[in-house]
Amino acid sequence: MEFAEHIKTANVEDVVLKQPFHAPMKGTLCVTGHHLLFSDRSGDSTWQLLLLLRNIDAIEKSVENLLGYSSHTSSNFRPAVSSGTITVKCKDLCILQLDIPGMEECLNVASSIETLSSLDSVTEMYPFFYRPSALSLDDPWGLSTPEKHYDQLGALQVKWRLSKVNSDYSVCPSYPHSVIVPECVDEQALLKAARFRQGGRFPVLSYYHQKNGMVIMRSSQPLTGANRKRCKEDELLLQAVIDGSDKGYVIDTRSTQQAHQARMTGGGFESKSCYNSWKRIHRHMEKGKVLQESLIKLVEACSDQSHNMDRWLSKLENSKWLSHVHTALSTAGLVAECVERDGHSVLVHGSEGTDTTLLVCTLAQLILDPDTRTLHGFLSLLEREWVQAGHPFQQRCARSAYSHARLRHEAPVFLLLLDCVWQLSRQFPLALQFGEPLLLRLAKEAYASDFGTFLCNNQQERCGLDLKDRTHCLFQFLLRSSVREQYINPLYESTDLAIWPSVQPQSLHLWTGLFLRWTDHTQIMEEAREEIWSIVTEHCGRS
Amino acid sequence: MEFAEHIKTANVEDVVLKQPFHAPMKGTLCVTGHHLLFSDRSGDSTWQLLLLLRNIDAIEKSVENLLGYSSHTSSNFRPAVSSGTITVKCKDLCILQLDIPGMEECLNVASSIETLSSLDSVTEMYPFFYRPSALSLDDPWGLSTPEKHYDQLGALQVKWRLSKVNSDYSVCPSYPHSVIVPECVDEQALLKAARFRQGGRFPVLSYYHQKNGMVIMRSSQPLTGANRKRCKEDELLLQAVIDGSDKGYVIDTRSTQQAHQARMTGGGFESKSCYNSWKRIHRHMEKGKVLQESLIKLVEACSDQSHNMDRWLSKLENSKWLSHVHTALSTAGLVAECVERDGHSVLVHGSEGTDTTLLVCTLAQLILDPDTRTLHGFLSLLEREWVQAGHPFQQRCARSAYSHARLRHEAPVFLLLLDCVWQLSRQFPLALQFGEPLLLRLAKEAYASDFGTFLCNNQQERCGLDLKDRTHCLFQFLLRSSVREQYINPLYESTDLAIWPSVQPQSLHLWTGLFLRWTDHTQIMEEAREEIWSIVTEHCGRS
Repeated sequence: MEFAEHIKTANVEDVVLKQPFHAPMKGTLCVTGHHLLFSDRSGDSTWQLLLLLRNIDAIEKSVENLLGYSSHTSSNFRPAVSSGTITVKCKDLCILQLDIPGMEECLNVASSIETLSSLDSVTEMYPFFYRPSALSLDDPWGLSTPEKHYDQLGALQVKWRLSKVNSDYSVCPSYPHSVIVPECVDEQALLKAARFRQGGRFPVLSYYHQKNGMVIMRSSQPLTGANRKRCKEDELLLQAVIDGSDKGYVIDTRSTQQAHQARMTGGGFESKSCYNSWKRIHRHMEKGKVLQESLIKLVEACSDQSHNMDRWLSKLENSKWLSHVHTALSTAGLVAECVERDGHSVLVHGSEGTDTTLLVCTLAQLILDPDTRTLHGFLSLLEREWVQAGHPFQQRCARSAYSHARLRHEAPVFLLLLDCVWQLSRQFPLALQFGEPLLLRLAKEAYASDFGTFLCNNQQERCGLDLKDRTHCLFQFLLRSSVREQYINPLYESTDLAIWPSVQPQSLHLWTGLFLRWTDHTQIMEEAREEIWSIVTEHCGRS
Repeated sequence: MEFAEHIKTANVEDVVLKQPFHAPMKGTLCVTGHHLLFSDRSGDSTWQLLLLLRNIDAIEKSVENLLGYSSHTSSNFRPAVSSGTITVKCKDLCILQLDIPGMEECLNVASSIETLSSLDSVTEMYPFFYRPSALSLDDPWGLSTPEKHYDQLGALQVKWRLSKVNSDYSVCPSYPHSVIVPECVDEQALLKAARFRQGGRFPVLSYYHQKNGMVIMRSSQPLTGANRKRCKEDELLLQAVIDGSDKGYVIDTRSTQQAHQARMTGGGFESKSCYNSWKRIHRHMEKGKVLQESLIKLVEACSDQSHNMDRWLSKLENSKWLSHVHTALSTAGLVAECVERDGHSVLVHGSEGTDTTLLVCTLAQLILDPDTRTLHGFLSLLEREWVQAGHPFQQRCARSAYSHARLRHEAPVFLLLLDCVWQLSRQFPLALQFGEPLLLRLAKEAYASDFGTFLCNNQQERCGLDLKDRTHCLFQFLLRSSVREQYINPLYESTDLAIWPSVQPQSLHLWTGLFLRWTDHTQIMEEAREEIWSIVTEHCGRS
């Protein structure tokens, strides 16, 4: 595609930009293939705003003829007095307004934004064009591989092996090329187990708890169907996970009813008769459309200007977002309890195994494993449990809370994860090496990015596009010494203990740093953080 | 009264104490005239809990005969197996449980608590008995006097004077002995104005804004009654306040309807025809019973254990507490805007002028005046605007959220003030020299204290009891170098600017440090605060 085709008006002068925390500015607006660039040269120095078009979720345009009697005036006058306003609603929840002189210019710019912000083809997206001088395409890509992860697991290696059964992604398109499975289960058995699980997502290792040797596995639902089909290999695989211990827990992220209904459409669950060492516990977690609508309602509530306390609290409740946070943390807490306190292994799945499953596994690891609470450890965890484990970022994060296009696959599951991590960081201010700014950055990058990390839906797609060689890696970038500093929590003190979150409703709070980011007082919070930071670094040399 | 009369059982052994953040402990319970003392000597060192009986808001007792077939057993056995439980609900919202062996002992202890925690006579209260070796009754009492305050006001003195018209408290029992009024209004006029205002609370100076010479006055409602009575002296007094400026604002903390209704019972408002330079603005603020019930509902919501997010948010909304915070901060913001931005003087009153009036005047000063944001300045402000200005602490803070006795005069107005100050400290983390621990301490001291500061309803009563010579002063104590340190905000950086609070509902938060203080995660917050504190003091020598 030629981007130029979609840009009828590339430059407009005398545009007025209105944005949070700034007085209105007059300057030049420039539309490029991937950005809106606004420059105000009126002051001593140039002030610029560079907005990734991909970050734009929705626009609203209103065109008006200022004189209001256009039909009576000479057509020569019209362009001069007509003007338009484009309200730009971003995926990072910021709302900008552009007052553009000239009706035609306004409509042209709006049309360019609409087209260019919704490109379908991945290779046309900005990460394939982003070439900053400080980065090289030869820089390392990613933080970890399944191989490295396996090497780090030490004691586990005795009874577990790295399987390459998926090396060409044919067994499970949404899995990485290698996965960790029990030593005694051969490739042939894995192939059969994969055919028995939705999307080929047979049970694989997610986490190994060094303290007691218990594990967290994850998969998709078994395809038992209405006829209660069985798969011996799948049963043996899970039996091998338990390996002598008396039992394991299946944490099913659907309600009992949903799990039973799933059989009608070919899905199912691990019945007691076939998996008699596994105790099934159902914890219903919302996903997909319900979650997306919850986010939309929450963002709508946050922008309510009515100055009515009751109305705000009622809307907040009605959005149910905090209920989803509550359920996610409770379920992760349950998984962590099974592993650490009860001393049993756990298998987590819902239906596809690419959303709530990953959410629960990730949070359980943060609760249990101190290594995942460092900056490097957390980014590695996200890479392993979200990027490599096949969370379909492209589908889930195509649109955000403002879009009118209700696409089928959108869901803020990753945002919900970040919110839950924020709750952890709030409840345990010393336990995480990273702070809110990192979570905010990740929330933004997942929806619109200069980097390739969150592109595509799985490793197979990334591999097909040579993403590693054609884009830069966000996680590597965030760990650069010049960058990482701003994401470090100055209060961090590592602890080996599990951090058990309080899931009392009273303990869970709205993530104001994200959802009310563009209101005034959030700026002041930022100021306080900077103050703490400057005290710690400048005075104590603790960076 | 002899306290001993009310103590039938002074000591009980083998009592089990259950309290938040501690494992149950077994020890000796001792009842004295003013305290419950629990000592656990089982460990290497003695662990003690000393609870002021005055801090107890309500108790619940349940007595049970453990064998359950008492009538069939010999009466000798009964006392040994019967036991009782006393649940102690404190005014600082902490809930303790005492398991007491012996039914009789339990009933005796409960009866002692009930009587001794509800003493009516002020001179029987603990501040009259508190004699720590580190303090002397000769120490200075109080931080400021009306005289000192007047001396500090500099430029104001030209047109204002210190009136001693109330030196024997006969003109206005709830005012201090001296008040600041316009120079040109003589004592005779004040006497007449006082007769025209409820409780004699004629308009007096609350705050002088150095930047532009505007003032905040406060009073009670004018007693116009149904016949629209006038008082020339009151009108001239307010005219003198404006002094050449074009107008002033009356901020009436009642709705227009309430103000009109007040005339039926002898009250009223400043009508446009009689006070034509004053523009009246009504901002309805709840007080009294409504506020008390709001607090009760909020505390009930906070102790809800249902683990249901929707229910919690719904109960929080239903308590309306945050709505009261919202209204208080908005109204104070309005007053501050009139003074600073609009450049006009303001008179604040509702009906009595001892509750919402003081709340609004105090918050407006915190917004406008940097001097009130230091530890010393804030305590002086409270002394001036609450203690000396006649907030009836004894009536308002006799009981708190757990008491079943619904007394007529209880109302958490002072608690609401502290909550609003907490919101300010949250929105402006650098602007206040004191932090949450001070606000928590004050919340506790207002309801039950070793000190005399919050005793009685006004200065006349305090004077009559020689409070100054017979009790110790809390404010002086809090400023001692060994004590003040724990109340200082390590991030404080003074600013001369006004701090305009955001009153968007989304910016106002539940004060978890107070209302959820006895839940787990609050402890972790405390830990973080200590960490920041230790970084700042130990490493940087910034104390």
